[in-house]
Amino acid sequence: MSTLINQVKRAKESSIILASIKTKTKNKALENIAKAIKKNKNKIIRENKKDVQRAKKNNLNQSLIKRLVVDNNKIKEISDMVKGVIKLQDPVGKTTEAVELDKGLNLFKVTVSIGLIGVIFESRPDAAIQISSLCIKSGNAVILKGGSEAENTNKILVNLIRESIKNYIPKESVQIIETRSQVKEILKLNDYIDLLIPRGSNKFVKFIQDNTKIPVLGHSEGICHVYVDKDADIKKAIDISYDAKCQYAAVCNAMETLLVHKAIANKFLPIMIKKFKKADVEIKGDNKTRKIVKNIKKSTEKDWKTEYNDLILSIKIVNNEDEAINHINKYGSKHTDAIVTENQKTADKFIDLVDSSSIMHNCSTRFADGFRYGKGAEVGISTSKIHSRGPVGLEGLVIYKYVLKGSGQVVKDYADGKKKFTHKKIK
Amino acid sequence: MSTLINQVKRAKESSIILASIKTKTKNKALENIAKAIKKNKNKIIRENKKDVQRAKKNNLNQSLIKRLVVDNNKIKEISDMVKGVIKLQDPVGKTTEAVELDKGLNLFKVTVSIGLIGVIFESRPDAAIQISSLCIKSGNAVILKGGSEAENTNKILVNLIRESIKNYIPKESVQIIETRSQVKEILKLNDYIDLLIPRGSNKFVKFIQDNTKIPVLGHSEGICHVYVDKDADIKKAIDISYDAKCQYAAVCNAMETLLVHKAIANKFLPIMIKKFKKADVEIKGDNKTRKIVKNIKKSTEKDWKTEYNDLILSIKIVNNEDEAINHINKYGSKHTDAIVTENQKTADKFIDLVDSSSIMHNCSTRFADGFRYGKGAEVGISTSKIHSRGPVGLEGLVIYKYVLKGSGQVVKDYADGKKKFTHKKIK
Repeated sequence: MSTLINQVKRAKESSIILASIKTKTKNKALENIAKAIKKNKNKIIRENKKDVQRAKKNNLNQSLIKRLVVDNNKIKEISDMVKGVIKLQDPVGKTTEAVELDKGLNLFKVTVSIGLIGVIFESRPDAAIQISSLCIKSGNAVILKGGSEAENTNKILVNLIRESIKNYIPKESVQIIETRSQVKEILKLNDYIDLLIPRGSNKFVKFIQDNTKIPVLGHSEGICHVYVDKDADIKKAIDISYDAKCQYAAVCNAMETLLVHKAIANKFLPIMIKKFKKADVEIKGDNKTRKIVKNIKKSTEKDWKTEYNDLILSIKIVNNEDEAINHINKYGSKHTDAIVTENQKTADKFIDLVDSSSIMHNCSTRFADGFRYGKGAEVGISTSKIHSRGPVGLEGLVIYKYVLKGSGQVVKDYADGKKKFTHKKIK
Repeated sequence: MSTLINQVKRAKESSIILASIKTKTKNKALENIAKAIKKNKNKIIRENKKDVQRAKKNNLNQSLIKRLVVDNNKIKEISDMVKGVIKLQDPVGKTTEAVELDKGLNLFKVTVSIGLIGVIFESRPDAAIQISSLCIKSGNAVILKGGSEAENTNKILVNLIRESIKNYIPKESVQIIETRSQVKEILKLNDYIDLLIPRGSNKFVKFIQDNTKIPVLGHSEGICHVYVDKDADIKKAIDISYDAKCQYAAVCNAMETLLVHKAIANKFLPIMIKKFKKADVEIKGDNKTRKIVKNIKKSTEKDWKTEYNDLILSIKIVNNEDEAINHINKYGSKHTDAIVTENQKTADKFIDLVDSSSIMHNCSTRFADGFRYGKGAEVGISTSKIHSRGPVGLEGLVIYKYVLKGSGQVVKDYADGKKKFTHKKIK
C-alpha cells in the first residue's frame, strides 16, 4: 500500500504542474512519445512476445490473444494514434463565460484539467498509450493499471512514455501499477483520484462502478433499441434495423431489442426477418411477434435486460409509441435508442421522453461513437447523468474554475448598498 | 424500506414527464406555489409553532431555533424567492452544440434535466421550498429529507407544493421523507437518485459524502486563503483581507488563513493587525509572524486545516508565491483563494497553479457566491472536480443528451467508404 500511495501522491502533485503547461509543450511531449514508439519498435515487440507466449501457455482465448499482440502494424497504428491526439484542440484554458459583476470586477469561467485520472483496462496494450496521450493533451496526470496478461508490454510502453515526456512535463504525471491487489486499493483513493475510466467487459466495468466512490466515466451495458413506428418509411426501417444489428454486433451501440408498432408489424416484419435470417441472426420474440414470425423462441423478461453482443435479437410488438418509450426507459441502459418514423410529432415525443444519452431519429444506433460524432478521439461512452454523457471526447477530461479579477473590491460595499452589481454578460 | 422505495420509484417515473414539460407550464406551477404559501400563511405559521415549541422544550440552541422560525416576514421571503425562480431562465432545452456529420445527418447536443435529485437538509424549512422550486424549474424530480426539528413545517410546505403543482406537473415529482432512518436508505439508492444535494454543517455534508455512491453537489469545508504578495498594493491588501475575514465570518467563503510575503510583512502586518484587533479578531501565527506581532498564539498544523467559521485567523509568512501556492493546495479545501498583487505575472501563476474552484485576484473571497456571480440563484457551492464546480446555479441541475437526426443513414456506408463524414460545425 505505501508504495502505491506514494505513486498516487507523486502523480497528484505533478498534475498541478501539468495542468498549467502550454499546448505547444504538451504537443512536443506527445511527438516524442510517437517517435520513441517507432524507435523502440523491436524492444516493444520483444516484450510483447513474452506476454503472448505466456497467454498461449495459459490457454487464454483466441480473441483475447489477438487483442494482445503488438506487431509492426500495431506499432504504426499506436504511433499514428498519438499523432492524431497532437492534432486535437487543447480543451484547457478556454473562457466559456465572462460576466462583468461591476466596473473593473470581471468574472471568467475557464476550462481547466481535472487532476488525476485513474485508468483501469483489460488486455489491449494500445489502451495504455491512447489514454495516456489523451490525459497529457488535456493536462491530466494518469495512473494506469493494465491487465496482468499484458504486464511486460504495458511496462515497457509506460516507461517509454515517461522517458519521452520528461524534458517537457513531469514524468511522474504518468504512473503504472502492476499488481492485481492494487486495483482494490486504487478504488479507495477518492481523496486523490478525481475520475476513473475503466475499459473492459461489462462485468469488469460494473465491478468498478460498484466498488468505488470515485466518479466513473463509462458504461457497463449497451442495451440499445430501435423503435419502428406506424408512420415509419419501411425501407428506412429495414436499413436502419439491419445496420443497428448486423454492421457490428459485438459493440455497445448495436441493437439488442427491436420494438415494432402493431399497425406496421405485418408489413414490416416478414421482409425484415428474411433479411436478418440471411445474416444468421437468431430471432426471439414476444407472443404477438410469434404470431407473425413462426418458429422463433419466446423472449422472456430476461431477454429485455440482456446485451447479447452477438447476432441475436429480441422483437416486441407494441401498441403505440408510449409503450415503446416505457419499455426503453424500463429495460434500456440509457445508452443509445432510435426511432424510425416520418411523423415529426412522434419523433419529438420520443426524443423528449426517452432518457438515453443518444437518441437517433431515422438513423442507426451505430453512429453513437466519439469519432463519428466528430470528436477526433473517444475517451469513452458514458451512461452517467453527471458530468459527461454519451460519447465523450477530450471535453470530458476538463472541468472549469472561476477567476474573478478586481481592483480592490470588497463585498461590504455591495452588502451595504454603496455599490451595485451590473451583471453584464461579456461572453 | 418498501414505502421509501415506492416513493423514490414514483418520483423517478415522474421525472421523465417533468423533464419534457415546457417552461410556461413549469412557471405556472411555481406561481401557484407562491400563491399557496401566501394563502396558507396562518396554517404554515401554526404548524411551525409546533416545531419551535418542541425545539425550545428540547433546549436546542438559540441560533438553530432562530433559523427554524417561520413568521410573516419569512412567508413573504419564501414566496418572493419562488417568484425569483420563475424569472430565471429555463436551463433545459438549449442546443449547446450542433454538428453536421453528413448532408442530412445532423447532431445536436441539447441540455436536459438530470432526473431525480435527493436533497437532505438540516433545520431551515425555507430550504425545502427553495430547492423544490429550483428542481421544478430545471425539470428535475426531488426527494426531500428535512431535519426532524422542522418536521411539521416541512410537511405542510411540501404538501402545499404538491397540491399547487398537480394541475401542471406530476405531483409525485416532489416527495418528502420524514424518518431519520430513511436517510441511510436514501444514500444507498444510487440506481434511482442521480444527484444528492446536502445542506447543513460541514460535518453533516462530510457524512453524506463519505456514505454514498451517489454524486454529491456540495462542499464540506471552506478553508479559504488570502495571499498578500510582495508586490501588493497595501491598501487593497488591507481592505480585501479585512472584508474576507470580517464582513461575515461564519460562512464558507470567509478567509481562515492569511499568507503574507516576507518582503511586505513588516510593512503590512502591523497596520492589518491593528484593524483586525479593533474588530475583535483572534490572531494566531507561525514563528515568523510572532516576531512581528507580539502576544499571539502559535498556529499549529491543525490550524492550517481548520475552518474557524468565526473571528479567528491564522497568519503565515512565506518566502515567495510558490510557498503560498503549495500551502493552499496542501491545506485548502479547493473552495476560494485570493491573491493581492500588482504583478500580473505573479497573479497569472497563482491563477494557474492554485487548484480551487474560485480564484480571486485583487478582490475579496466573499464574492464567491451564486447571487454575486449573477446566477440569480445558488444551488450550492461545489468543491468537486466533476460536473459542477464553484458556485452552482440552475446550470448544475442539467446534463445533456445527443440527438442525431437523419433520413435513413446507416453506418455501413461510412465504414465501407461509400460515404464520408463532413463534420461541419453548425453551432
